[in-house]
Amino acid sequence: MKQLRLTEEQITRTEESLRAMQETICAKLSEVDGAGKFTADKWEYAAGRGGGDSRILEAGGVFEKAGVNFSSIQGDRLPPSATQSRHNADDQPFSACGVSVVVHPLNPYVPTCHMNLRFIRLDNDRWWFGGGFDLTPYYGFKRDAVEWHLNAQAACEGFGDEENLYMRLKKNCDDYFYLKHRDEARGIGGIFFDDYSQGGFEQSFAFAQNVGKHFLRAYLPIVRRRMSTPYGEREREFQLMRRGRYVEFNLLYDRGTLFGLQSGGRTESILMSLPPRVAWRYDWQSDPESAERQLLTDYLSARDWLSEEPES
Amino acid sequence: MKQLRLTEEQITRTEESLRAMQETICAKLSEVDGAGKFTADKWEYAAGRGGGDSRILEAGGVFEKAGVNFSSIQGDRLPPSATQSRHNADDQPFSACGVSVVVHPLNPYVPTCHMNLRFIRLDNDRWWFGGGFDLTPYYGFKRDAVEWHLNAQAACEGFGDEENLYMRLKKNCDDYFYLKHRDEARGIGGIFFDDYSQGGFEQSFAFAQNVGKHFLRAYLPIVRRRMSTPYGEREREFQLMRRGRYVEFNLLYDRGTLFGLQSGGRTESILMSLPPRVAWRYDWQSDPESAERQLLTDYLSARDWLSEEPES
Repeated sequence: MKQLRLTEEQITRTEESLRAMQETICAKLSEVDGAGKFTADKWEYAAGRGGGDSRILEAGGVFEKAGVNFSSIQGDRLPPSATQSRHNADDQPFSACGVSVVVHPLNPYVPTCHMNLRFIRLDNDRWWFGGGFDLTPYYGFKRDAVEWHLNAQAACEGFGDEENLYMRLKKNCDDYFYLKHRDEARGIGGIFFDDYSQGGFEQSFAFAQNVGKHFLRAYLPIVRRRMSTPYGEREREFQLMRRGRYVEFNLLYDRGTLFGLQSGGRTESILMSLPPRVAWRYDWQSDPESAERQLLTDYLSARDWLSEEPES
Repeated sequence: MKQLRLTEEQITRTEESLRAMQETICAKLSEVDGAGKFTADKWEYAAGRGGGDSRILEAGGVFEKAGVNFSSIQGDRLPPSATQSRHNADDQPFSACGVSVVVHPLNPYVPTCHMNLRFIRLDNDRWWFGGGFDLTPYYGFKRDAVEWHLNAQAACEGFGDEENLYMRLKKNCDDYFYLKHRDEARGIGGIFFDDYSQGGFEQSFAFAQNVGKHFLRAYLPIVRRRMSTPYGEREREFQLMRRGRYVEFNLLYDRGTLFGLQSGGRTESILMSLPPRVAWRYDWQSDPESAERQLLTDYLSARDWLSEEPES
């Protein structure tokens, strides 16, 4: 279906807003971290035109690794993994710009988070937004889960032409961040969308901006609340093993990762999402009724968090 | 092309020989390790019939993790990743039995090794062997590389109807264990074969057995030679980062892994190959002329090791 033609101003505005979002996210994460600094690594897109700016913070006080990547690239063929549903979009010249964030905190009580916003154009008449945010806790807290999803809901509030955009995007997220080979969710979800152009450009652009804004509103309070929780060897070890699941998801399933690697993207910037330290142990099982088991039983199953009573 | 019909005795003999190979490999690795013991974990193939026996040694004296898996399964559809070239073999009932070995030593001077032998039958008229062995050092030693390849050559000696089976299978191995997204080899190679049925069953079976035998001959002397080399934080850290490449290869490219996960195989047994401890650092670069750099420049490039002068 043909869409209204985009203006140059709209294209520039989207790119600038995603770039500004990168700056804001880095500034806020640095502030919370206290010790760590982001370094910038600019790169060119070898397989086409354009490039990116990868910001990375390693070995911080709060964040063991945080990557905030901006890229704006043009290429001759949209890789098949770029979109789930627009199959006829393969093999066409494309422009893509986006920001993606993955944060791996040091303290196992602070969840890992992921956020991504991307704007893809085949030509000025065919374009869409994609992205979302999701949370991967190591130890479950109902309050965190409920607040995270309240922010996800707020990000969707007033957008979309369906009754409950949040519920649909939450389901997308639960379906997408799922490790089939483990029959296990990656985390507690959030929202995930693709091929989004509802209500035309201005509405879709406003929605993408709102998602970015609510991501920070959702994540930072959880970090501040959990970052000083004492932990020991046991929690650290569990975190390292759960991070193994994160690696499995990203390398086996994640379309963003596969899109990047298939389209000749910059490997280090794409694999920036991988955790700094990871462990795999053969068939490790948590003790029944332990906090580690509760993560699986009570958090890593698709739940309607907004029907829960928040508590601390 | 139709092959000579296999007898029940031949099928049983193959399975028993692969099972015996598992026992021998576990016994030899235990002996070298000194401290660690293999535990056996038997499982059933949920997506079909049959099952397996995973032997795993963790936190040993020499081996941080060693997995020796035997499986014998039957299913209704051969997964597409099961074979590179027999595309018309998809979607047919199959039997597969095999042994696979991955060893992750603790000392960074001892290389990681991988060996796999598998026997796949579509029916008694269509079957083949696949497998091989390859070495992934963290620090390069010419003597180890040359001896490894001499054993690989010896495994091929007298087999195949071409002039130099080793050279073809070595090239297969170099081509296969390659990380396209890094433009980097996984290790120094060895031999790798698929769809192997040259000379009929008895010849092919003898070849598979010879590969198993030479794998141990190739690996154990290298382990004994390097296992007491002193190392520190620097070497350990480099090993952890190189292991990250191993994970990337296995989850992004390895057909054995993808075959297993696609065919509803047992996740823990398939992912037994993943290293116990791994690290990823953003865009880490070794110092020029360091031993770490030499691994890349002098070892992780396809070389004809048998034209080299062995030295210690």
